[in-house]
Amino acid sequence: MNIITPRPISGFPELLPDAQIVFNRCLQIVRETYELFGFAPIETSAVERKEILTSKGGDEKEIFALTRLFTRPDESPETDLALHFDLTVPLARYVAQNKDKLVFPFRRYQIQKIWRGERPQKGRYREFYQCDIDVIGRGTLNLITDAEIPSVIYQVFKRMNIGQFVIRINNRRLLQGYFEHLGVPAEQIGDVLRAVDRLEKEGRDKVRGELINKIGASEAAADDILGFIRSDAADKTLPTAGVETDAVLAKIKASPAMSNERFAQGAAELSTVIAGIRSLGVPDAYFRADLSIARGLGYYTGTVYETQLVKYPELGSICSGGRYDDLASYFTSDKLPGVGISIGLSRLVIQLIEAGVLKTGASTPAPVIVTTMDNTRMNDYLSLAAALREAGIATEVYFDKGRLGDQLKYANRKGFKIAVIAGESEFAAGQVKIKNLISGNETICNRAELAAQVGMIVMSHES
Amino acid sequence: MNIITPRPISGFPELLPDAQIVFNRCLQIVRETYELFGFAPIETSAVERKEILTSKGGDEKEIFALTRLFTRPDESPETDLALHFDLTVPLARYVAQNKDKLVFPFRRYQIQKIWRGERPQKGRYREFYQCDIDVIGRGTLNLITDAEIPSVIYQVFKRMNIGQFVIRINNRRLLQGYFEHLGVPAEQIGDVLRAVDRLEKEGRDKVRGELINKIGASEAAADDILGFIRSDAADKTLPTAGVETDAVLAKIKASPAMSNERFAQGAAELSTVIAGIRSLGVPDAYFRADLSIARGLGYYTGTVYETQLVKYPELGSICSGGRYDDLASYFTSDKLPGVGISIGLSRLVIQLIEAGVLKTGASTPAPVIVTTMDNTRMNDYLSLAAALREAGIATEVYFDKGRLGDQLKYANRKGFKIAVIAGESEFAAGQVKIKNLISGNETICNRAELAAQVGMIVMSHES
Repeated sequence: MNIITPRPISGFPELLPDAQIVFNRCLQIVRETYELFGFAPIETSAVERKEILTSKGGDEKEIFALTRLFTRPDESPETDLALHFDLTVPLARYVAQNKDKLVFPFRRYQIQKIWRGERPQKGRYREFYQCDIDVIGRGTLNLITDAEIPSVIYQVFKRMNIGQFVIRINNRRLLQGYFEHLGVPAEQIGDVLRAVDRLEKEGRDKVRGELINKIGASEAAADDILGFIRSDAADKTLPTAGVETDAVLAKIKASPAMSNERFAQGAAELSTVIAGIRSLGVPDAYFRADLSIARGLGYYTGTVYETQLVKYPELGSICSGGRYDDLASYFTSDKLPGVGISIGLSRLVIQLIEAGVLKTGASTPAPVIVTTMDNTRMNDYLSLAAALREAGIATEVYFDKGRLGDQLKYANRKGFKIAVIAGESEFAAGQVKIKNLISGNETICNRAELAAQVGMIVMSHES
Repeated sequence: MNIITPRPISGFPELLPDAQIVFNRCLQIVRETYELFGFAPIETSAVERKEILTSKGGDEKEIFALTRLFTRPDESPETDLALHFDLTVPLARYVAQNKDKLVFPFRRYQIQKIWRGERPQKGRYREFYQCDIDVIGRGTLNLITDAEIPSVIYQVFKRMNIGQFVIRINNRRLLQGYFEHLGVPAEQIGDVLRAVDRLEKEGRDKVRGELINKIGASEAAADDILGFIRSDAADKTLPTAGVETDAVLAKIKASPAMSNERFAQGAAELSTVIAGIRSLGVPDAYFRADLSIARGLGYYTGTVYETQLVKYPELGSICSGGRYDDLASYFTSDKLPGVGISIGLSRLVIQLIEAGVLKTGASTPAPVIVTTMDNTRMNDYLSLAAALREAGIATEVYFDKGRLGDQLKYANRKGFKIAVIAGESEFAAGQVKIKNLISGNETICNRAELAAQVGMIVMSHES
C-alpha cells in the first residue's frame, strides 16, 4: 500500500496530550469565570454566508471559503459559504437573527475556534481559539457594565496563575476630545488615534514624525499629544500601584481640555469605570488608567481595554476590547450598544508553555493506575477500578501483559500519581497495596477501604 | 446602509442560550466521564490535507474543501486543504505523526465539531459535535480493553439522565465464523454482514430476499442465518434483563458452528468481554449480547457496539463503535490495533430537547441576580456581587435603570433562582434582603452573611 507520511500544516497548531491537558485547564478556567459573572454560553456555526462575513468589507484576505469537493451536476454548487474569522461578526448576526427571542441586556460568552485565511507565515496561527464575552443592550447599555469587564479579566488571569499582569484602561472619547481641544480637524482624529495606537510598537520618535509629517500637526501639538498620553509601557516599565491611576485621573481633571465637552464626558466615564472596578475588588496593582491605549479599530467608541503580562510584554495585549455604539448595524436597524473583550487563548497558552510559565506534567488526566500482576485476575482489577471511579477518582487499568516493573515504568512515563497493586497474597488476604508514586511510600489496606485511602492521597497531592 | 437580513443555513444548527446550557452540560458530562476512565484529551486541527482525508477513498462526497477567498497573484493558491469529516482519520494521522512521542496503549478522547460537505437535506446536519474515545495499542492490544468501552458508555448516558438505554454487543469474528460454517464463500461474507446489518431498518423479509436472490444463499441457509441472529430489536421489543445475555452465550456455546475456529474465537472473545463488563459494575439491564449487531463498516474486526434508547428507537444507535486491527495503515507501516466508540452529540441532544427528555430552563448560568433599586449605590451593589462571586456563586448585577418590579420580571425571564435586594433602609442597617424566586420566600441578613445565606439556598435548589 502507498503510505502517506503526515506532515504538519503551517498555522494549524496541535498539542501532545500533556500540553492539551494544560490548555484544557486554562479553557475551563475561562469558561467557569465567564459563567461566574453570569455570561451565558452560545455557540455559532463555524460556517457563515460570505455576505455576512464581508459585510464590513476589507476582510477578504482573512477568509477561508468552502466548496463541496464533490457536487452532482444537478446540484447547485453552493459557493456562498465560508469559515468565520472572528466571533464578533457571528455574534452580530446571531443577535440580529434572534433579537426577539433573547433577553436584553444579553450577556454571552463564546469560546470557539476561528480561522484566518492568510498565507502561511512563521508564528501566525490560521486556526485558534478565541474566548469572547460581550454584554449587548437594546437601545441603551449602562456605563457601569464597562466596569465589570476588567473584573472578569482579573479573575480569569489570576486563576490561570500566569504571573503579574496589568489591565490598561482608557476612554476613546477622552482622547478624541483632547485632539479636538488641540484643534485637530474632525476628519483627522481617526488618523491621530491610529498613529497613537502604534506608539508602543514604533516608539515615540516615529509616531511624532508621523503626526507632524503625515497628519500635519504642528510640532507643539505633536509634543502636547505625546506628553498627554505619555505611555509608560513604551518605556518598558509597567507601574503596579494604584497611585498612578489616581495621578492620571488628577491630570485629566486638571487638564485645560476639560472645557471640551467630549473630553469632559470621557473623563467622567473613565472615572466612573475606575470606581466600579475598585468596588468589584480588583486590586490596584492589576489595572491602571492609561491614556496611551487607543485601540486602532474605529469600532470602539468609549472605554477601551488592553492587558499585558508584566514579564512578557513581547506577547503584546493578551486580552483586548472595549465599548461600541452599535453591534449589528449591518444586520438590523435596531441599535445594539455593547461592551466586550476577547482572549486569543491558543497563542497565549502555547507561548506560556514554551516560556515555562505554564508547566506541562502528566499525559493522563487520571491520578491512579491499577496494575495487573496476575492476568487471570483481570476481572478483580476491573472491580477495583470500578470502585475508584465510583468514588469519582479517575483511574486507568494497565491492560498489557508485563512485569510490575514495566507497569510502573509506564505509570511514570504517563505521570500517574498512585499505583494500586494486588497479587496472589493480597487477593488471598482481601487487601490491596497502594503505592504513592510521588513519595514512593507504600501502604496496605482492605479492599473495601481502597477508594477512601486513595482519595486521601489524591487530595494530599492536590493541596 | 444596506441591511442584510440573516437567515439560517441548512444543516448548521444553532441554539438559544437555554438550550446551549443544556447542551454544554451534556458535553461536560461526556468529558468528565471520559477522563474518569483515564482517557487523555487531544484536539486535532479542523483542517487536514485532502490527501489525508481521501486516503481511504470514496468519501469525496462528504468533504468541504477550503480556498482562500483572496490570494495575491504571487502567492501559491493552497488548494490542498479541507475540513475533517470525522475524528477517526485525523486520529490515525495524529498517531502516525506523533507515534514516537506518545505512550502506548494510547488512550485518547476527542470532542470536536466535524463537517460533512453534503447537499442540504432536511434533518441532516452538516456541522456537528462528535465525542470519540479510542484506545490504540502498538503491535497488540489486550482484549479486555473491549470490556471497558461499554462501561464508559454506561456511565455517560446514566449521568446524562436520558432514560433507559441498552448497549448491544456482538463480535464480528463470530458472525463471520458462522457464515463460514454455513458454507458462505469467503468473498461473500462481507455482503452477508452488510445485509444482516440492515435487518432492523429493512425487516426480516427484505433481508431474507436479499440473502437468497442477491447473494445466492439457499433458503435453508438464509433461514438459518436469520434464526441465529434473531434480532429482538427488529421486533421492537428491547429486553432488559441479563438472563437474555446468558441465553445468547449459551446458544453460541451449543452451536454446531463451534467447530469453526473463527466462530470459536469470536465466542471466547464475546464471553470474556461480557464477563469484564459485569466486573466493571455495568448492570445487566443496560447491556446485552446481541447477535444482530453487525456494523456495516469493513473496518471493524472483532467486538462491535451499538446503543439504543429504549423509548426512542427511532433515534437509531446513539453510540457505536468497535475493535479494529489497524488504525493507520494508510499513514504508517506500524501496526496499531484499537477499539473505540463515537457519540454524535449534537443530533442526540437537540432531538432529546425536542422530545422533552432533556428539559431547558434558565437562559443564564448564574443562580443569583443583584437588583439595583438605587442607582447612586451602584458601587455597593458591585461589592455585594463581588462577595458572592468570591464564594463561587455565579452572579449577575442588574445594570439597567428600572423599578424593582421590572427587575424581578427580567430575573424571571432569564431564570434566576435568587434575587438580592437592597435599598436605603437595608443599606442604613448594614443588611440585605434575599428573595428566593422559586419559593417566593424573603429573608433579611447582615451584609457579611450574604454569601453564606445565598449559598445555602443555591444548594437547596440543586438538591
